[in-house]
Amino acid sequence: MGSLSDIGVAAGINILSALGFLLAFAVLRIQPINDRVYFPKWYLKGTRSSPRHLGTVFSKFVNADLSTYIRFLNWMPAALQMPEPELVEHAGLDSAVYVRIYLLGLKIFVPIAVLAFIVLVPVNWTSGTLENEKSLSYDQIDKLSISNLGKGSKRFWAHISMAYVFTFWTFYVLYREYKVITTMRLRFLANQNRRPDQFTVLVRNVPPDPDETVSEHVEHFFAVNHRDHYLSHQTVYNANTLAGLVENKKGLQNWLVYYENQYAKNPAKKPTMKTGLWGLWGERVDAIEYYKSAIEELCKQEDEERQKVITDPKAIMPAAFVSFKSRWGAAVCAQTQQTSNPTLWLTEWAPEPRDVYWPNLAIPYVELSVRRLIMAVALFFLTFFFMIPIAIVQSLANLDDIERLLPFLKPIIERNSLKAVVQGFLPGIALKIFLIVLPAILMTMSTIEGHTSLSGLNRTTASKYYLFLFVNVFLGSVITGTAFQQLNNFIHQSANKIPEIVGESIPMKATFFVTYVMVDGWAGVAAEVLRLKPLVMFHIKNAFLVRTEKDREEAMDPGSLNFGTTEPRIQLYFLLGLVYAVVTPILLPFIIVFFSLAYLVFRHQIINVYNQQYESAAQFWPDVQRRIVIALIVSQILLMGLLSTQQAEKSTVVLLPLPVLSIWFHHVCKGRFEPAFIKFPLQDAMVKDTLERANDPTLNLREYLKDAYVHPVFHKNDMYELAAIDEEEKNPLVATRRRSRMNTPVDSKFNSSSGTTEGEFSRMPPH
Amino acid sequence: MGSLSDIGVAAGINILSALGFLLAFAVLRIQPINDRVYFPKWYLKGTRSSPRHLGTVFSKFVNADLSTYIRFLNWMPAALQMPEPELVEHAGLDSAVYVRIYLLGLKIFVPIAVLAFIVLVPVNWTSGTLENEKSLSYDQIDKLSISNLGKGSKRFWAHISMAYVFTFWTFYVLYREYKVITTMRLRFLANQNRRPDQFTVLVRNVPPDPDETVSEHVEHFFAVNHRDHYLSHQTVYNANTLAGLVENKKGLQNWLVYYENQYAKNPAKKPTMKTGLWGLWGERVDAIEYYKSAIEELCKQEDEERQKVITDPKAIMPAAFVSFKSRWGAAVCAQTQQTSNPTLWLTEWAPEPRDVYWPNLAIPYVELSVRRLIMAVALFFLTFFFMIPIAIVQSLANLDDIERLLPFLKPIIERNSLKAVVQGFLPGIALKIFLIVLPAILMTMSTIEGHTSLSGLNRTTASKYYLFLFVNVFLGSVITGTAFQQLNNFIHQSANKIPEIVGESIPMKATFFVTYVMVDGWAGVAAEVLRLKPLVMFHIKNAFLVRTEKDREEAMDPGSLNFGTTEPRIQLYFLLGLVYAVVTPILLPFIIVFFSLAYLVFRHQIINVYNQQYESAAQFWPDVQRRIVIALIVSQILLMGLLSTQQAEKSTVVLLPLPVLSIWFHHVCKGRFEPAFIKFPLQDAMVKDTLERANDPTLNLREYLKDAYVHPVFHKNDMYELAAIDEEEKNPLVATRRRSRMNTPVDSKFNSSSGTTEGEFSRMPPH
Repeated sequence: MGSLSDIGVAAGINILSALGFLLAFAVLRIQPINDRVYFPKWYLKGTRSSPRHLGTVFSKFVNADLSTYIRFLNWMPAALQMPEPELVEHAGLDSAVYVRIYLLGLKIFVPIAVLAFIVLVPVNWTSGTLENEKSLSYDQIDKLSISNLGKGSKRFWAHISMAYVFTFWTFYVLYREYKVITTMRLRFLANQNRRPDQFTVLVRNVPPDPDETVSEHVEHFFAVNHRDHYLSHQTVYNANTLAGLVENKKGLQNWLVYYENQYAKNPAKKPTMKTGLWGLWGERVDAIEYYKSAIEELCKQEDEERQKVITDPKAIMPAAFVSFKSRWGAAVCAQTQQTSNPTLWLTEWAPEPRDVYWPNLAIPYVELSVRRLIMAVALFFLTFFFMIPIAIVQSLANLDDIERLLPFLKPIIERNSLKAVVQGFLPGIALKIFLIVLPAILMTMSTIEGHTSLSGLNRTTASKYYLFLFVNVFLGSVITGTAFQQLNNFIHQSANKIPEIVGESIPMKATFFVTYVMVDGWAGVAAEVLRLKPLVMFHIKNAFLVRTEKDREEAMDPGSLNFGTTEPRIQLYFLLGLVYAVVTPILLPFIIVFFSLAYLVFRHQIINVYNQQYESAAQFWPDVQRRIVIALIVSQILLMGLLSTQQAEKSTVVLLPLPVLSIWFHHVCKGRFEPAFIKFPLQDAMVKDTLERANDPTLNLREYLKDAYVHPVFHKNDMYELAAIDEEEKNPLVATRRRSRMNTPVDSKFNSSSGTTEGEFSRMPPH
Repeated sequence: MGSLSDIGVAAGINILSALGFLLAFAVLRIQPINDRVYFPKWYLKGTRSSPRHLGTVFSKFVNADLSTYIRFLNWMPAALQMPEPELVEHAGLDSAVYVRIYLLGLKIFVPIAVLAFIVLVPVNWTSGTLENEKSLSYDQIDKLSISNLGKGSKRFWAHISMAYVFTFWTFYVLYREYKVITTMRLRFLANQNRRPDQFTVLVRNVPPDPDETVSEHVEHFFAVNHRDHYLSHQTVYNANTLAGLVENKKGLQNWLVYYENQYAKNPAKKPTMKTGLWGLWGERVDAIEYYKSAIEELCKQEDEERQKVITDPKAIMPAAFVSFKSRWGAAVCAQTQQTSNPTLWLTEWAPEPRDVYWPNLAIPYVELSVRRLIMAVALFFLTFFFMIPIAIVQSLANLDDIERLLPFLKPIIERNSLKAVVQGFLPGIALKIFLIVLPAILMTMSTIEGHTSLSGLNRTTASKYYLFLFVNVFLGSVITGTAFQQLNNFIHQSANKIPEIVGESIPMKATFFVTYVMVDGWAGVAAEVLRLKPLVMFHIKNAFLVRTEKDREEAMDPGSLNFGTTEPRIQLYFLLGLVYAVVTPILLPFIIVFFSLAYLVFRHQIINVYNQQYESAAQFWPDVQRRIVIALIVSQILLMGLLSTQQAEKSTVVLLPLPVLSIWFHHVCKGRFEPAFIKFPLQDAMVKDTLERANDPTLNLREYLKDAYVHPVFHKNDMYELAAIDEEEKNPLVATRRRSRMNTPVDSKFNSSSGTTEGEFSRMPPH
C-alpha cells in the first residue's frame, strides 16, 4: 500500500502548490497595478494603454470590485476562446504551433490511456503474481504494472499487441499533425504581406578579390549569374564593437534617469555618487553631471567607431544580403549552388531582419567545421562528464577534509550551524546552479557553432538540451548513477544487455516519475503563469526608473517562449508517456493532466504576455517530430529489453519490426514534409510575384528593400519601423480580413541590440 | 618456420599462374584472329578495321612475325604511355577516374609500407617475446607482427604514433585526390560539347489532372513556373512490353542468321529444327521458314503494341523530360523544389540518354519508400542469413542422411566415385554459385529500389556488395563462423568487447589474407587481361553467326568496367591494407603488387577493350572516398581493440581521437567537394550558355533536343546517332584540340534494349 499513499501525499502537496500559484495569479492579475505584468502583449499591440479603473488612487492600484474575484478562474475559458487563425494572427505562427505541441500530447495520450486502462490495467491487475509471492515486498501501484505478470506469462501478448496499436496510433497522429502544421506554414507564408526576407538571400564566404571591394564583387557576381533577377545588395559590417558601445550607453542612460528621478522628487538634495567600483569607493561627485559627461564621451566614441566602420574596408565582412527583383529569383538563388567551389558564395534564405544573429555572419567555412568539431566533442563531455567538476565542488563541502588540510580554519568550521548549512546545502546548490546556467552554456555553444539566425540558435540549443535531459534525467533516473558511470557500464555491457538493464528498471521507477511529473510539470507550469520574477522586476523598475509612459512600457518584460529550453522539457513527457504506456499505464493520467494544464497556461501566456522576438513560421516542427519518433523508438527498444528479461523471448522477434517501421516512418515523413520547412517552392513564389505585379505595378522594390538589412546599430529605430508599417498598410498584397501588424518586420522593442538607439545617428549608406 | 615457407609456396604458385595468364595473353593478343577480342575499343572508334597483316590465309589468323613475340610484354609500358587528358578523351572520365583508384592505393600504401618497414618491422622483430616463450608455437611471420611484442610493452607507443602518422597521411592523400577528381570532373563538364542532358531535367510524379493530359499538364506547369526558361518536353511512355518484344525478335533474328549461314555453307541440306522446348522434341520443320514466319508475327505484334502505346493514354507515365532554353534554366529547375508538396513534380538532372533506366521512371513516391524499406530488410537478411539456404543445400549433400531417408537410392550412392564427387564438391559448388549470382541479385534489388539511371543502379549495388564483402569476407575470415553466428555473438557481447575480439584475431589471420591477396588479387587480375570468356564467345559467334563485317562488329563483346562489383573488391584491399599497416606490415608489399598490377592491366583494358555504356563524369567518387574512410575508421577501432587486449589500456584513450578526427575529416570533405558531384553550379552553366550564345547565335535548340529522350525502342537507331554527331561536329561549343566522339550521346551499340532495332519502324511524334 505504501507507495500508493506516498503518491497520494505527493499529489496532494503538488496539487495544493499548483492551486496556490493559480489562486495567487487569479488575484494578482486583476489588480490594476499588475496589469502591465500580466497583459503586456496588449500594451505592445497598442490596444491597452492604462489601468482600466480610473477612480481614486487606491482603486488605481488595487481592485476593489469584489465581483471580479468570484470569477477568478475566468482566464481559463478565455484562453481557449480565441480561434486558431486569430491566434496565428495575434501571436504569430511560432507561438500558435508551439502550443499545438501540448495539444499533440493530448491527442496521442488520451486514446492511448483509455485503451491502456480498458485492456492492460485489468490484465495486469488480475494476474496476481506479486500477491502469490509473499516473499516479495511490492507496492500497490506495481499490481497495475507489467511487473504483476509472472515470467513467461501468456498475457504478455496483450502488451505486445498494445505496443503495436500504440505505435500505429502515434504514427497516425504524428503524420496528421505534420500535415496540418505544413499546411499552416504554407498558408501562413502565402498570406504573408510583402516582407524583405522574401526577396533576400544571405550570401556568405564571398571570396576576396584583389581588384574589387566586397560590395563590387558581390554586385558583379550576381549581376552576371542572376542577370534577370538581381536587384541590389547590402554588405555586412563588423559592427560588434559599435553594438557594444551602444549597449554601454544604454546602461549609463538608465542610471542618469534614475538620478534625475531622485533629483526631481527631492530637489533640495543633489544626488551624488562615488566613481569607484560599484559606487563603493572613490571620489564623490555629482551623479547627474557625471553620467551626462560619461554619455557625451561615449557618444563621441560611438561616432568615431561608426566612421571607422563605414570607411575601413576591413570592417566589411565577406558576407552580404542580396535582394532580387522577384520572390522567384530569390527562391532560385537560395536553393542553388553558385560556383564550382561549394564553400564559396554560400547562399541561404535570409532570416527576417529581427532574426539575424549579426556577430556570426563572417565565419569562414573551414573555421566553421573546426568549431563544430570542437563543440561536438565539448557536448559529449558536457553530457557525460558534467558531474566531475560538480563532484569536486561537492567534495569541498566535506568539511572534515578541509579541517584536516587547513587546521587553522577549525574554530570557524566547528560551529555547528555553519557546518550544517555548508554540508546540507552546498552539494545541492552546486548542482542547482549548474542546471540553471546549463541552457546559457548550451546557447553559447550553439553561438560558437556559427548559426546565423536566432531561430537556428534556439533549435540547435534544443537538440543539445534534449540529449542532456535524455541522458542525465531519463537514463540517469532509471539507472541510478552518474552519466559517466552509465557510459562506462554501457560500453562494458553487450549490445542486447543495455535495453534489458534499462528496461528492467523501468517499471520500478514509475513512482519516481509520477512525482517528477507533478513537481516539474504541474507545479512548474502553474508557477509559469504567476510570472513571479517579471512581477518583482517590474515593480522595482516602476519605483526607481520610470518617468514617462514610454519608460513604463520599457519596464515591462513580456518575455517569450524560449524554444531552446522549454521544448526539450516537453519532449521528456512524450518520452515518459510512450515508455510507460505499455509498462505502467497509471503514469498516463498524470501526463495528460500536465499537457492539459500546460496547454491552457501557455495559450493564455501567448495571448496575453509573450512577445516573440522573431517569427520563423514554425520552422522548428521537424525537430519536434524527430524527437517524438526518437522517444517512440526508445520506448520500443526498452520494451523489447524488458520482455526479454521476463522469459518472453519470442517477443523480441515479434517486436523487432516496430523500430524498423518507426525509422521508416520517420524517413517517409521527412521526405514528404520536411522540404516545406527548408525550401521555398517556386510555384508559390511565382503565384505571389504574379499577384503582386497585378496589384501593385508601380512598386519601387529597391526603395522598399533599401534599409531592411542594415545592422541594427545603424538604424534610426523608430523612423525605420514606421516607414515599414506605412508602406505595408498602403500596399497590402492581398486584402485579407485578418491582417495585423504581427507579420510586419517590426523590430522588437525588446531586442537588446536594437533597443533604444533612437537619436541623432546618421543613417548608413546602402552599401 | 612453417608459415613463411607456406607463403612462399603459395606465392610461387600464384606468381606462376599469374605469369601464365600474362604469357598466354601476350601470345594470344598478337594473333590477328584475336584482334577483335583484345582491341575492340579501337574497332568501335573506327580507327582499326581489319587484321593488320594482309597476306596468306594463314597469316590472317596466326602471327608469324617472330620479332613481335620477343616484345611480348610491350603492352605494359604502352598502357602507361597515354597521358591522362588523352585517356579521359579516349575512354571517358569514368574509366580514367576508375583506374585512379588503383593509383590512389599506391599513393597511400607505398609511403606507409616504407615507413612501416623502417620503423615497425625492426621494433617487432627485435622484441623477441615469442622466442622467449618456448611453449608457444609461432610462425616466423609472426615475429614481424605486433604479436611479437609482450603484453604491456612500451614499444606499443611506436605503433600508436605510426597509427597517427598513417591516418594523417591517408587524410592528406584522400583530400588531395578528392580535390583532383573534383577539378577533373568540373573541367570535363566545362569542356563537354553540347549534350541533351545539359538542358534537360527529369520530372517525376506529375500529379494527375482531370482536365488535361500529362503532356499538357507538364507544358502548362513549366510554362508558368519557369516562364523565361521552359523550352519543350518529352513525355515518357510505358514501353516495357514493347521493349520485351523487340528483345524477343532480336533473339529470333540471331537464330535465323545462324540457320541461313548453315544453309549458305551447305545449300544441299535445308536446315530443320523441332518446335518444342529447347528444340528437343515436337514437330520437325524447316528452320528458316519457321523463324521467318515467327519474326513476321512478332513484327505485327510490335506494330500493334507501338500503336497502342502511342494512342493509349494509360501508357503515358506521369514523368517527363523537360528541356530548357539554357543550361542555367535547367540547373535552376533541377536544384529547386517546384510545389509545396515535395512528393510531386520531383525534378532532378536528367541522366544522359544512354544512362536512363527506363522501366523505373514511373514509380510513385509512396511506393518508392515502401520498396526501399523492403529492400533494406532484404539486404539485412541477405547479408547475415545467406548461409541458411546454402547450408540446407549443403546438408542435402550429406549422403548418409539421404541414404537413410531414401533407402532405394543406396546402390547408386554406395559407388565410391560418385560419393566422393558429391560430398567433395556439392557444398563448395552451392556456395560458389551463390557468390556468382550475388551481384545479379544485388543489382535486381537496386532495380527494385527504383533508381532511374544505370550509373545510380551501379552505385547502390556497389554499396550493397561492399556491406556483404565486409561482413562475410572480412569479418567472416577474421572470426571464423557464419555471419549469422557472428551477429549472434556480437549482440551478446559488450560494445567494447567486439573490437577486442576482432582485433585480437587480426594478427593471426595475416597469413590467410596474404594468400587471399595473391589468389584473388594477383591471379584474378591477370585472368582479367586474358578475357577468356569473351575470347571463346567471340570465336563461337564468329564461326556460326557472322556474315558481314557489321555482324562481326556485333560479335565483339568489349565489356565494360562493372563498377557495382569491381569497386567493392578494390575496397577490400584498402581495408586490408589499412588494418594491417600497423599490425602486420608484411602484408603491405603484397597489396602494393596487387595495386600496381591492377593499375597496369585496367589501364590497358580501358584503352584497348572496354566500351562504357554511359558516362557519369566520375559521379561515383564520393562513394569511393566514403568507403576508404570507413576502412580507416574500422582499422582504428580494431587497433584500439587489439591494444586493449595487450594490457596497453592507456592506448585506447590515446587512439580515441583518431576515429573522431576521421569522421570529422569525412564531413569536411563531404561539405567541400560532394556538391560538385550532385549539383551543377549556376556560374558554370552561365559561362557555357554565354559562350554558346556568342559562338552559335542561330542554334535551333528545340530541333536539337527533339528526339534526345525518346524511348530507345522508338529510335531509328542509326539515323538518330548520325544526326546527333553531325550536329555536334558542325557546332562545337569551343574548339578544343582534344575532341572526340566519346562525349557525344551515341547510343551504345551494345546496349541491349536499343541494339538492333534498325528497320522500318516509324518514328514517335515528339509528344
